[in-house]
This record gives sequence, structure tokens and C-alpha cells, in this order.
Amino acid sequence: MAKYAIGIDYGTLSARALVCEIGTGREISQAVYEYRHAVMDERLPDGTPLKPDWALEHPDDYIEALATCVPQAVKQAGVDKADIIGIGIDFTACTLMAIDKNGDPMCRKYPSNPHAYVKLWKHHAAQDQANRLNAIAKQRGEKWLARYGGKISSEWMFPKIWQMAEEDPALFDETDRFIEAGDWVIMQMTGRETRNSCMAGYKAIWHKKDGYPSQEFLKACHPKLENVVSEKLGAVTPIGSCAGGLTQKMAGTMGLMPGTAVAVANVDAHVSLPPAGLTETGSMLMIMGTSTCHIMLGDTERLVPGMCGVVEDGVIPGLMGYEAGQSCVGDHFNWFVDNCFPAEYAEKAKAAGMNAHQYLTSLCEAQKPGENGLLALDWWNGNRSVLVDVDLTGMMLGMTLTTKPEDMYRALIEATAYGTRMIIETFEESGVKVEKLYACGGISQKNPFLMQVYADVLKREIRIARSSQTPALGSAMFGAVAAGKASGGYDSIQEAALEMGGTLPVVYKPVSEHSAVYDELFSEYRRLHDYFGRGENDVMKRLKDIRKRQSE
Amino acid sequence: MAKYAIGIDYGTLSARALVCEIGTGREISQAVYEYRHAVMDERLPDGTPLKPDWALEHPDDYIEALATCVPQAVKQAGVDKADIIGIGIDFTACTLMAIDKNGDPMCRKYPSNPHAYVKLWKHHAAQDQANRLNAIAKQRGEKWLARYGGKISSEWMFPKIWQMAEEDPALFDETDRFIEAGDWVIMQMTGRETRNSCMAGYKAIWHKKDGYPSQEFLKACHPKLENVVSEKLGAVTPIGSCAGGLTQKMAGTMGLMPGTAVAVANVDAHVSLPPAGLTETGSMLMIMGTSTCHIMLGDTERLVPGMCGVVEDGVIPGLMGYEAGQSCVGDHFNWFVDNCFPAEYAEKAKAAGMNAHQYLTSLCEAQKPGENGLLALDWWNGNRSVLVDVDLTGMMLGMTLTTKPEDMYRALIEATAYGTRMIIETFEESGVKVEKLYACGGISQKNPFLMQVYADVLKREIRIARSSQTPALGSAMFGAVAAGKASGGYDSIQEAALEMGGTLPVVYKPVSEHSAVYDELFSEYRRLHDYFGRGENDVMKRLKDIRKRQSE
Repeated sequence: MAKYAIGIDYGTLSARALVCEIGTGREISQAVYEYRHAVMDERLPDGTPLKPDWALEHPDDYIEALATCVPQAVKQAGVDKADIIGIGIDFTACTLMAIDKNGDPMCRKYPSNPHAYVKLWKHHAAQDQANRLNAIAKQRGEKWLARYGGKISSEWMFPKIWQMAEEDPALFDETDRFIEAGDWVIMQMTGRETRNSCMAGYKAIWHKKDGYPSQEFLKACHPKLENVVSEKLGAVTPIGSCAGGLTQKMAGTMGLMPGTAVAVANVDAHVSLPPAGLTETGSMLMIMGTSTCHIMLGDTERLVPGMCGVVEDGVIPGLMGYEAGQSCVGDHFNWFVDNCFPAEYAEKAKAAGMNAHQYLTSLCEAQKPGENGLLALDWWNGNRSVLVDVDLTGMMLGMTLTTKPEDMYRALIEATAYGTRMIIETFEESGVKVEKLYACGGISQKNPFLMQVYADVLKREIRIARSSQTPALGSAMFGAVAAGKASGGYDSIQEAALEMGGTLPVVYKPVSEHSAVYDELFSEYRRLHDYFGRGENDVMKRLKDIRKRQSE
Repeated sequence: MAKYAIGIDYGTLSARALVCEIGTGREISQAVYEYRHAVMDERLPDGTPLKPDWALEHPDDYIEALATCVPQAVKQAGVDKADIIGIGIDFTACTLMAIDKNGDPMCRKYPSNPHAYVKLWKHHAAQDQANRLNAIAKQRGEKWLARYGGKISSEWMFPKIWQMAEEDPALFDETDRFIEAGDWVIMQMTGRETRNSCMAGYKAIWHKKDGYPSQEFLKACHPKLENVVSEKLGAVTPIGSCAGGLTQKMAGTMGLMPGTAVAVANVDAHVSLPPAGLTETGSMLMIMGTSTCHIMLGDTERLVPGMCGVVEDGVIPGLMGYEAGQSCVGDHFNWFVDNCFPAEYAEKAKAAGMNAHQYLTSLCEAQKPGENGLLALDWWNGNRSVLVDVDLTGMMLGMTLTTKPEDMYRALIEATAYGTRMIIETFEESGVKVEKLYACGGISQKNPFLMQVYADVLKREIRIARSSQTPALGSAMFGAVAAGKASGGYDSIQEAALEMGGTLPVVYKPVSEHSAVYDELFSEYRRLHDYFGRGENDVMKRLKDIRKRQSE
């Protein structure tokens, strides 16, 4: 008798439930729920206006997702709920909630107070706190700073907590605990509070041996933060653990059996490795979309310049999970199509039955590497890894009067590949060897030309995850692990990956003549990367300053 | 009784005859003749194929122009031919002809031999000879090299003559003289051979005191060139001189009076200063079109790095005429509209009844300097002055995901203004003070926004020539000077300029707040100009090499 697991992928605007078969990884059915309150960045439900850079969510939406898309997916799957043995979820992070002693969100009591709501990962109103936190950490020589590429983001947990402590001290005092929304949803399902090691490690400066930042450091940030770890956070549970069984009440809500095993929460990118079959050191997965996240497995903790974080138990229990990122990948191509795609091309694309990306790609395919004569720096949205600098901007050179749109489009694709090569080379120079390379996400399945460029630039074979829903499938696999072998699941995520994960038959292999040209071009990229990115000529920052001044 | 002069502007594809009134400069009528053979760059009239980079013209077209558009313009003007006292022409240069003892073009005798035809200014098949000529000149330390920015162009006279000497020595031997097409047309009209100082100075390395390059140098280039100056060229006549009177035969052809005064030929850009009223030192005229030519008057010969040439009697008799150039100005904006103007913008422009340039300009006008956050190097077609490097290419930086087409369009406009500032600053650093700045040509009359950007960037007032046909008007003015005061004309071009030249009422004045921002931006431009243009990082050339290799 086949057994099933459910994975729920909580995104920024919607949640997706996926029912899949244990053993095969076959994806049986899925259903999507769009959050009723969406992202609140202008006002609260009662009309209270929000300041710029705020981004909130409503916790009720998360529960409604469980109550709607899970039963819907199960119904579509036509499977017996008794055969559904495990549930896992992944969530955006740090998406921070303030809760009371009963675990209830503070916004239930204070529906007109913005600070009482869920602060979404892209809430950027704690930048000031993040800047001060970084300055204090640097000044005190906090050794954890290097584990995060030298900079803590305003999106992460402590800046967000600090913002409330400073701007609404009364609510801060009344708040019993701060918790990631993903962990809170698990708490709603199981009745037990867990804090997963993935979110704690990547977003809350938690370390398996050293724990959270010290009281002294936190006190130096703000007096109210001194005891925040002991008083308002909690113990961390490794990912791959079972958080508990589904409560009677939630089993009713979700249309599942009480006691169904629930895994601790995970993050969307990080949960995507097992679905690609990856659980071993030396493997890197590129999760490619509007931006790219690089998750890399290692067995020892090394400091890689410009990485987003390294966390033991962060991705696979017992291993070091490294995260790096490119803040602009698909967004470059979308920007180009929105702003530089001429009317004449639009007509030809239409006549050929292609969208703009497909049409430009078809023209790029006819070119050889280097034939466009162009070189770009992929910094239209700043640079995350390895420079960790949001104030960098884009650059392109080599244009002549014969340069065509497809030349520039290809240059942008190549630039993102060079950006990835910078990351991989930085890993390797830091002693973390990238032995196998994989990709998942929309672009990886939709654009074979782009993947070939990556293979040629990176001089590595690239394999593509089979699933187009890696986060939901990964969550389901962790659900199967939470259930355990005895119940028809697995005892480890490695076992689950072996059976349920895998890649597509296609393998992108570097073409040596292409790679030889790209070696030359990459050395040009690297030189300009360092020239503009490492302080030799800070023209991009000065232009941004002038722009800011002139836009006021 | 009003007197009239005729100016004939010989362009690349057509000739234009303008009848104008002496004293007022009033433009009475004009007529255009399109060359029957156009530019021959693929085959001769009999089908003989041409190699790449060749560009020839047919001398019959020049005479047909005189026979058609002059009578047509005179007829339209409705003036008595007895009142037409002078004729002047300007011509593209170096547009080289090989003629026999009778002054007949060699192509009449050898209609199937490409070398027997007119080699148009943009005939680029003598690049190899130009490269060798430059190397030999450098090695020998020829002092005239510095008068031409350190490089002789393949478009100029000696590389073209050398090409024939090498590729068709028999025809070279049979050729009695080499002559600029402009001078040849004057010879047809007057029956006398003159060689004007403008073309000789800027295109044939002629110097008022030192003459042409030495026999030793020419012999070092090619044995056949040793005596080319004494045997196949001729004496040089200052511009502003009368070449002679119209012959009986040509008077019949053109419908004018025999004996009408004909001025020596001139070059289109250089002839444009008097129509703007400019005949004094310290004045610079920007002739703005697809490219920009800067003509500057001085009283002493100074070596300005990267200028195209400095010639005594080259522009105004008795003065030093400096020439500099930007090889890509309007062409940048045309490239952008052809390759980066989105369909959505095309629709909005259409709805607003504007062309693409007008629409983008209207959006640019709403921005403050620096608000686009962008900086470009205006090298889409290489850099003429001050770097004299055709292998440089374009660059733009500062792009973000919010960058719009109008931001980039404005950046290109600004880049060309920075390029002009580099030229002006280089002139001034070399001791040639630019006291007054003027512009003529299509862009200068059509785009007030662009002219304001130039005024702001250059921190100078800019005045615009009144005439939209400055070359033809300038030629007519030189025709009036050839006639002389006694006949109702002028004794000097200065007198003619005073009465017939002038500017529009509009004066573009720098706005100090704009100039302050542009000072900052220009210092960034200058730094990148030097970084990419002066050898610190030759990435543009390496990309071009790779492109060439990969395109083969």
C-alpha cells in the first residue's frame, strides 16, 4: 500500500499544498491558496497607514491556507487520509511574529498597531537598526559576523526585534515570545513550540555550538535586548526532526488524521536540496528565479567571504549548509524586456508565436560566445555574494552602432553566469570544494540555452532537479522523515532523497571551445568586478548619492 | 540692385545649390540633385565587383549636378543671371581623383578599373597603407604627425594614393595628377587647376611653411611615392581666393554668365563658420549631426592632443583653423531608438504625435541632472578626439531595476556633452582658449533640450547659426568674396560674415545648479574616460579582438 506525504510551501503571496507519493516522489496533486490580506505595505486591515519600507502579513492567512488548500489537494489526490503519514512546511524567513503566552499573535489584541503584525521577510523598516547592529558587531569584533559575509541584513531577526523594542517598547514588553511565522504554523499544527535550525541559523545568528549572540553584545545594541534570547526566544531543533503529531483540532481543520507526523519548519531555498537528490558534501544547488540562491553542503565550517551564512544543521542534519546569493538574475532579463525590447522585435516575436524571452533567446542561440563583443556586471539590484553591497549598480560595455538587443540580452545572461562563477571560485578559494552542480527553479527548466551558457562559463556539468515544485516536494520529504520508517516514511532525509529526489535526464556539459572564450571574458569580468566593486573606483555609489540628492 | 551668389554643397549622395542674396544672406531658393551612381561600394557601372571597404563615386555625377540643380535653383529664385556674381562650392574630402594630362578622370579611359574611379572620403580600403604610413612617420619622428593628433586616417590622401601605387602601379604611372574632387569641379568650371588650402591642409598633410611631407619620408613609404608631390600634385591656393571665371562652356551648362567669379573649393564643415558669423580667433563651431565636427579659430599654431588637424589658412585666411571631432553623436540617439525603444513607448509617442526622439526628449526634460543615476562613455563608434582610437566602444553604468529608457537616452545625450567638454578642456589646456561657442547642424536647431544640456555641461553660452544650410551658404559667401567688392561682393570673408552670417535669437545659457551637478558627473566621466581610454584597462580592445575572432 502506497503512503503519502504533504508538503506546504508558504510563499510571499500564497501557499501551495502538494500531495506526493512516498517511495517514488510522484507528485499526485496540488492546490494553491492566495493570502486574503496579501502583503500589507500601505495600510492595516482597519485602514491604519503604514510608513515606507514596511511589509506586513496577517497570521490568519497562514491558517486559512491549511484549512483550504490542504483538503483541496487531498481531495484531488483521491487518497485515503489514513495513508497520509507526514506533513512538512517551508516558509519565507525571517518572517517574524510577536506572540503572547498562549501563542496568540499580538495583532489579535492590537489590530491597529502595525508592530503587532507579522513582519514579512521583505519588511525593510529596520535598516537603521541593522546598520547600528553591524557597526557594533564590527567594533566589538563579534566573530559570528564573518559567518554572514560580514553583514547582517535588515531583513533578519534581531534588527526586526530591535525596531519594536525601540519604536514600541510597551508592546515589546508585553510580547511573550518572538517566533518565525514558519515555526508558529508548526506550533498551531502540533500544539508544541519548536524553532528550526535552518531559520535560526541563517536569520537569527544562531550557531550549533555558540548559540545566539551574547548578552553583552545584545545589551550594547539596546538595553531591552539584553535578555531577549533567554526571555523571548527558545531552544532550537535541528531540521529533519519531528515537531509532533497533528492536534485533534487541526486534523479537523485540515481534513487529516490526528497524530499525523509534522516536521519542523524549513526555508524554501534550503529545503530544495533533497528533491534534487542532494544530501552530500560538495554539492551546490542553484535555486534560480528572479534572484538566485546558492545552497552548498560541506563537512567543515569555513569562512567564505560574502556568503549569506554557514549553518550546521541548516540544510541537512549533521552537515554544514552554506548559503550565497545573487540578488538579480531573472530580474535582469525581465528589466530588459520591459525597457529595451523594440516594437519591431515585439512584432516578430508575436509572428513567431514566442514571448519576448523566447524570441531573444532564439536569436542568442545563433551566436558564438564573445561574438556580441559585450561585457556586463550583473548588479542591477546590487551585489549580494561575494561583495555584499546593495549600492552597486549595473554596467555594460562594448556597445557599437551594430549592437543589437539580442547582444545585450545575451550579455546579461552571461553576466549572471560570471557572477555565479565568482561565487563558486570564492567558495573553492576558501576551501569549500564545489564538486557537483545542480539547478532548480523556473529558469533552469525553461531556458536550456541559458543553462548551456552557465555550463560553459562555470566549466562544470549542471543537472536540473526533476520537480518543478522543489520546495513543496522537499517539505513533503521532511514530512515523510518526521513520520519515520516504521510508519512507512524514512529514518533520514538522505533515504528520502535517494528514493523521492532526482534530476531530469538532461545534463548540461561544458563545450571546451566555449569555455576557453569564457575564460578570457571572465577574467575581464573579474577585473571590472574588483575595480568597481572593491573600492578602486566607487563611481556607482557616488552616482547613487547624486541621484538621491537630485530626486528629493 | 541686389546681387546674388550661389553656393553648392557637394555631399556624399547629393549636391545642393543655394541662391542667396549678398548683403543680407537671405536664402532665396535651392535645388538638390541626387547622384545618379550614388556611392558605388559593391560594383562598378559595368558590373565589375568591388572588394569590401571600397567606396567609389562617378565624376560625371558632379557635372550633372552643376547642369541640373544650379539652373533649377536660379529659375526658382527668379533672378537675373547677370546679378549672380559669384559661385563657391564645398565638397567631401579627401575624395580623390586620378586624372590625365587633359584633366579627364582615368575612369573615362578605364571604365572597368576600380582604381580609375573617384575614391570617396569613406573608402576604407587603404587602412593597411595608413597603418604603415603611421608606423613609418612615428619611427622617423615626423614632426607633422602631432598636428594630426598623432594619426593619419586611411581616409586621407596619401594612403589612398599609396594604395593605387601598390595595387595598380601601371595606372599610377599613367595618372598625370591626383586631385581632390572638389578642386577638380572648380577646374571644370574655370579651366584652371587650383588646390585649396583647406583640403590640402586637413587631408594631405600640407603645411603653409613646410609644404607636404618630405621626399625621404614618402620614399620610405613606397618608392613610387618619392616624387609624387612634385610630379602628381600641385601648388596650394589659400581658401578665400578666386579660382577664376566661369568658362563659356560651363556658363552654358549651368545657365550663368561666362566669367562669373568662382572661389576655390572648401570642405563642408570648415566652410560653415562664416555663415554663423565666425571669423575671429577664440570661436569654436560645433557642426552637429550623426557625428560632430569642432572647428576652432586661433592665431598661433599649437599642438592640441587628439585634434584632427591644425591648418593655417584652413578655415579663415590668415588664421589657424583647428579641427576636432566626435565620431558618434546623433548616431548614438538613432542607435538607441532603433534598438532600445520599447513597443509601449512607440505607442505612447504615436498617440502624442511625436517621433521617438521627441517623445524620449519630452520625458528627459522632466528630469534633473543626475537624477537618472547613469553615466555613459560616448564611444559607440570609437573616439576621434581626444583619444584618436577607433577601437574604443561604448559603456554605460548605474543601471538599476528602475532605470527607464528615457534615463538611458538622457545618459547618451549627456555623454556626448562630456565628450565635447573633454575636447574643449584639452584645447584650453593646450593654450587654445575657447572664448565663444556656437553650433550648427540639424540637432542644434531641432533639440533645445540637448542644447541646454550642452550649455550646462560645458558651462558656456551657446549660440546657434541662423541658417539650416550653413555649408551651401558658406560656399555662396566665399563665392561673393571671389567676386570682390568692386563687383558687388566682398573683399574678405570677414566682411561677408558680418553682413550675411549670424545666429538665431536664442542663446543657451548654463544654469549654475545644473552645472554644479554636471561638474561632479564630468569628473566621473573623465576618470572612466582615462581608465578605459588611455591604456589602464584595454578591455574594450580585447573584447573587440575576441569578437572579431569569434565572428570569423
